[in-house]
Amino acid sequence: VTETVRNSAAERMHAAEVAAGERAADLVLRGGRVVEVHTGRILPLDVAVAGPRIAAVGDVSHCLDAATEMIDCAGLYVLPGFVEPHLHVGGSQLAVEGLAEVLLTRGTVAVGTCFYEPAVVAGGGAVEELLARAAETPLDVLLSPFHAAALGLGTFGNLRRFGLDDLVSLVRHPACVELREWNWNVARIPLPGLQEAWEAALAEGVTVGGHLEGLTGPSLQASVALGARSDHEAAAAEEAVEKARAGVTVQIREGSGARDLDRLVAAITEHGADPRCFAFSTDEQELASLLRDGHIDHKLRLAVARGVAPIDAVRMATLNAAACLGVDAHYGAIAAGRLASVALVEDLASFRVAACLARGRLVAEGGTYTARRRAARPYPTDWRKTVRFERRLEASDFLLDLSGRVASVRVIGITPGSLLTEELVEEVELEEGRLSAGSGLAKLAVLDRHEGGARGAVGLVRGLRLERGALASTVNPGMMNLMVVGVGEEDMALAANRVVELGGGIVVARDGEVTAQIALPLFGILSDAPVPDVAAACTAVDEAIAGLGSPEPGLLTTVGFACLAVSIPALKICDRGLVRVTRDSQEAVELVVSKLVEQ
Amino acid sequence: VTETVRNSAAERMHAAEVAAGERAADLVLRGGRVVEVHTGRILPLDVAVAGPRIAAVGDVSHCLDAATEMIDCAGLYVLPGFVEPHLHVGGSQLAVEGLAEVLLTRGTVAVGTCFYEPAVVAGGGAVEELLARAAETPLDVLLSPFHAAALGLGTFGNLRRFGLDDLVSLVRHPACVELREWNWNVARIPLPGLQEAWEAALAEGVTVGGHLEGLTGPSLQASVALGARSDHEAAAAEEAVEKARAGVTVQIREGSGARDLDRLVAAITEHGADPRCFAFSTDEQELASLLRDGHIDHKLRLAVARGVAPIDAVRMATLNAAACLGVDAHYGAIAAGRLASVALVEDLASFRVAACLARGRLVAEGGTYTARRRAARPYPTDWRKTVRFERRLEASDFLLDLSGRVASVRVIGITPGSLLTEELVEEVELEEGRLSAGSGLAKLAVLDRHEGGARGAVGLVRGLRLERGALASTVNPGMMNLMVVGVGEEDMALAANRVVELGGGIVVARDGEVTAQIALPLFGILSDAPVPDVAAACTAVDEAIAGLGSPEPGLLTTVGFACLAVSIPALKICDRGLVRVTRDSQEAVELVVSKLVEQ
Repeated sequence: VTETVRNSAAERMHAAEVAAGERAADLVLRGGRVVEVHTGRILPLDVAVAGPRIAAVGDVSHCLDAATEMIDCAGLYVLPGFVEPHLHVGGSQLAVEGLAEVLLTRGTVAVGTCFYEPAVVAGGGAVEELLARAAETPLDVLLSPFHAAALGLGTFGNLRRFGLDDLVSLVRHPACVELREWNWNVARIPLPGLQEAWEAALAEGVTVGGHLEGLTGPSLQASVALGARSDHEAAAAEEAVEKARAGVTVQIREGSGARDLDRLVAAITEHGADPRCFAFSTDEQELASLLRDGHIDHKLRLAVARGVAPIDAVRMATLNAAACLGVDAHYGAIAAGRLASVALVEDLASFRVAACLARGRLVAEGGTYTARRRAARPYPTDWRKTVRFERRLEASDFLLDLSGRVASVRVIGITPGSLLTEELVEEVELEEGRLSAGSGLAKLAVLDRHEGGARGAVGLVRGLRLERGALASTVNPGMMNLMVVGVGEEDMALAANRVVELGGGIVVARDGEVTAQIALPLFGILSDAPVPDVAAACTAVDEAIAGLGSPEPGLLTTVGFACLAVSIPALKICDRGLVRVTRDSQEAVELVVSKLVEQ
Repeated sequence: VTETVRNSAAERMHAAEVAAGERAADLVLRGGRVVEVHTGRILPLDVAVAGPRIAAVGDVSHCLDAATEMIDCAGLYVLPGFVEPHLHVGGSQLAVEGLAEVLLTRGTVAVGTCFYEPAVVAGGGAVEELLARAAETPLDVLLSPFHAAALGLGTFGNLRRFGLDDLVSLVRHPACVELREWNWNVARIPLPGLQEAWEAALAEGVTVGGHLEGLTGPSLQASVALGARSDHEAAAAEEAVEKARAGVTVQIREGSGARDLDRLVAAITEHGADPRCFAFSTDEQELASLLRDGHIDHKLRLAVARGVAPIDAVRMATLNAAACLGVDAHYGAIAAGRLASVALVEDLASFRVAACLARGRLVAEGGTYTARRRAARPYPTDWRKTVRFERRLEASDFLLDLSGRVASVRVIGITPGSLLTEELVEEVELEEGRLSAGSGLAKLAVLDRHEGGARGAVGLVRGLRLERGALASTVNPGMMNLMVVGVGEEDMALAANRVVELGGGIVVARDGEVTAQIALPLFGILSDAPVPDVAAACTAVDEAIAGLGSPEPGLLTTVGFACLAVSIPALKICDRGLVRVTRDSQEAVELVVSKLVEQ
């Protein structure tokens, strides 16, 4: 059984013996400037490492022998390795091995994640196997499970492969640190398994993480009363301040879909909120962005550039994040007994990561992953070929089912950079179920991919400013169905069929040709190919997406959330059709609002 | 089984339902100014209470019905109830019922304590019974066990009644939040049960509290590596800063024996240490001082008067203390879901407690305890008559065993206000084993009281400036033997015999008469008499002690620590004789340094 944050007596005794001078340190970080998160001081100090833990900070001359390895940290800042409290592995396209490589190179040493997406495709057992695989990498994965039923997906979701009994088991798993995505509305869903999972979390001392999107006043207070310790959904500075006042750690989310950092740091820099109440997260961040912008190091840069004091920003990336997951005995400080997972950065403005240590081992230097890669272990075969369709798709599958030419219909209004959508009502001209040129609209289809394409729905979106072609993907939060967005039905069918052939992935088509593709053969959402290959494919896909004319940089994530038919308002689409979503309800609505008018 | 800080799903759901407006609050605190510890803001806010927990803070108008009780808090500050992280019940002379009364009246709602003293007298089973009795009071007792063997008392202590297996059981007890008094030297004591207790704490997620007296550099780092999360033994500002930098919460101790606050707040006010790294504790505080000066409210007054910002001081008394015991999900903030244990104070300078709520019930108002007292349940008979002597003591028992008239002898040097003693060597004139007048010395005897007075030793102390009479007591840390301090052997015998007759207690004798006494019939250290009676006796004893001529205000505690023959240097006395104590060793030494010289 994997237990990421085991409070090992043997490890601590080893560290103590080294601190006391009875054994030699394995490693010393010499000559760096240590950022002390507890006191806010930055001082020239050495750090002795014993096995996976820090033994002593300060004068460590008595901890050395000839075999002690020295790392010269002159000119560098010694920071606790960064902690990402809220990440979904479905966002990055990488299997855990690749994720470890990318994140550690950026100084992130621990991530809280749920493995929900693999579980919903391949069953709850996949989580245990993924934890075991993660444990073979130097990246620490802190299990933080949830179930989309907890977002109200019970109505639409499939509980057969990953049930609520699985959720309860995961909460009781030794690697579990948090039950995530909790709130008052979730607690009211009449599924006993959900209640049981929450009660298990309270009983086991597992932290409760919030999903407090848009919650304020009574529903916020009720959610916090249930134990919600943190939230990653704040969208405005005032909202962040209210949550901080309620005792919630606000995880400032800056991912590919939601980019909240600019607005939320104003809570600190303009509203005077205490930075101790904040952390950083990404939720979902695409690989291309991880490689181009960085991970938590990127949020640090942004926050400091926008006026957050460097020491406060470092606390947000380390101590505060660890504390809100209840793992600050192990992560978040350069101090005796904590894990020797360390980010060495060039300065406290660029936060460029010169090197990263994970549990006492150097794993990245100068932007290059240097940890020994294990021989690839084959993935279970039932994790592949999970995108099932009984027949090839046709352009006709993407026609809107309207017999007339002008209809008053519901349109999903998208705002770039936000996960919120609007419910628009527009008069739309249609020619045989096709969009007319220049309408500014695109089609968004969601097709069930778990049960052979038994269900599907086509809707309309405004705000993407897509000009041509189509994008098909099995990467989207919630049910990971096949979503297809585009302005040409032939390209939509072409992209969709190619995704199915790949066993899942992301495909761009334009003018009757596939212009780029990423194969994501694991669960239809992850790749076990080498990171550079996946990255190259991502770059090609990003360029191909740009070629479709949309100015939206996080198009894939933005569209993906438009397919998450729960919790985040307002109009969404799933494989059963359009759904009107409020923070505590879902209601199926028709595409057509008023009768067709023959012109 | 008592489980003080159970994370009750039912309680939290009740609070959430009230917050959401689905049920009415039981109680609303209206019109007060809430001190928000997370953000540092002080705002006019109402607080809705549901059962034992806070349901909502802010606009709670939707949480009311006709049955909701209102408490008008106009003009008052609404603070989280104070948390005392490190208290020994042996210090206050009160059984838990009386302790609850005194502390709650002062705004303290939760105390971490070990019940070690009762356990060592009446066995480990007494702890469970005491927890059950505490649970019948409105004061929350957070179990924080240790064993004096962990201070090196294995050599001298009696492990028969309270063994290390008992310690391990207590660490695994559901009410346990901390294993206290841990450090690197303790971890090296070759008693497997100690190691097992520490490993159990790590495995159970029980916090490890430090006893880091005088530890610095390697031994401090080693202790922190073992998990020491807090310390109550810092004596100087620089030491406090070093500990804070190591990630330790420094519990500023201001009790009857050690009064460290003045020195330690300078770490904040002069050395710029982050106040988030500090809390308050008393360790041992005599009842008279509790009633006269106050408890944590007293430390708040002192700290603010010495320049600590009020919000920082409040955090030290609440959130920081709760966090270092790992119970900040329940205590330390006025926020939804936390226990509705609240101190209403008049201002943030006097911190005069106008009223106190414990788990949603008003328990004290205007300095008066208003909680319903339960009918007294008789205490187990084996908790009484625990001071066992086979014969009456005589003045001759207190003669120094020296046949000559001048000897070079070891003297325990006492400094008022400090627990540290000095090893002095002096030429002492003796007349038939008696002290000569004007020597400035006093005699200090320790007699085994557990096994019929089988062992005893008489030593000398300087620094008390006792001028006449004697004081005998079974109240002292560690072994709770009968200690007798005085300048007249007849008075010493008189006081000692009276203590035995009382079944334990504190007795002052002077000129052949008992001038004051407190009976402490429970374990020889606690009284179950009504608080006013105990208080009156304490006052009388204090006055009688003052009549002995010593200017030392905490004489009883100061002398008590001189009888704790471990851990805190330098020269101590126990029932086996003088002991030279370093931070990691004890060594029996002789009274006489050089041969007697006949003058």
